Amino acid sequence: AKPRVGYTFRNGAVENEIRKILNRYRVRDVKSVPVVVKETCSIYDAIVALFTEDTGSIYVVDEDNFLTGVVSRKDFLKATLGQMDINKIPISVIMTRMPNIITTTLDETVVEAVRKIVEHEVDSLPVVKCFIDENNEEKLQVVGKISKTTIARLFLDLAMKRFEGV
Amino acid sequence: AKPRVGYTFRNGAVENEIRKILNRYRVRDVKSVPVVVKETCSIYDAIVALFTEDTGSIYVVDEDNFLTGVVSRKDFLKATLGQMDINKIPISVIMTRMPNIITTTLDETVVEAVRKIVEHEVDSLPVVKCFIDENNEEKLQVVGKISKTTIARLFLDLAMKRFEGV
Repeated sequence: AKPRVGYTFRNGAVENEIRKILNRYRVRDVKSVPVVVKETCSIYDAIVALFTEDTGSIYVVDEDNFLTGVVSRKDFLKATLGQMDINKIPISVIMTRMPNIITTTLDETVVEAVRKIVEHEVDSLPVVKCFIDENNEEKLQVVGKISKTTIARLFLDLAMKRFEGV
Repeated sequence: AKPRVGYTFRNGAVENEIRKILNRYRVRDVKSVPVVVKETCSIYDAIVALFTEDTGSIYVVDEDNFLTGVVSRKDFLKATLGQMDINKIPISVIMTRMPNIITTTLDETVVEAVRKIVEHEVDSLPVVKCFIDENNEEKLQVVGKISKTTIARLFLDLAMKRFEGV
């Protein structure tokens, strides 16, 4: 959606200030708590979690609690449309796996995270901390979530001045 | 998600400018094109539209093209989980109806629209024009859509200065 009208600022300095301020926010400042399930969780149980926690996407971890997958409402919808027995099939069958998971980190700017969300057309990003294990493999610990809802709330906070510390 | 750190502006004037500028945007400036189906459309066909158009919610209209319902991915997921024959049952059975549809108008501010999205916990708002028919009933024509994706894009435009007319 390219803007069309009313976007002209009389003052370039003000506009620069806005960019500066928006770019000041880090993922750690706005992240929310993700819903996380194990790979062995059934598709059905994961959908129940989706509804009870009222979330848009679910993150999947292995037995050591490292991130292995992401499942969106769309993935669930595809699964329920098919002939699968969702009570028996584990969520790992339908999840998006590494290296196809788009992630962010605590220190990344919110702007960069939003750019990833918009460009990759995903609903949310897992916020991860990266570790290297004894086999020299990268392991990701999930420490939060950034979603479009996070962005909407931040936009509202900025516009309504509901945030603290001002 | 309440912000915690880094939200302190040194300059109250700049912060006022941000609020002024964010509040300048109208729904008409950023709205996108909605996916609209008739009440008689089957749940299955509506889900196909959801995937082919890659959208999060679908708006439903009557034979005169006036808005009668809204269906989210969550509503579809509920329907596919149940025992319904989604090939036969029309979408009107599962849609949210007036007066429970939260709407916005072309002249409303984007901030007010985002407030509605956040407070009512919906993914999108139909942008409507209101008419009064011969029976003195209010009829709503769908002229657009505002979603969390719209807000993420606007946030990015503001932060990256990708918008025109500057």
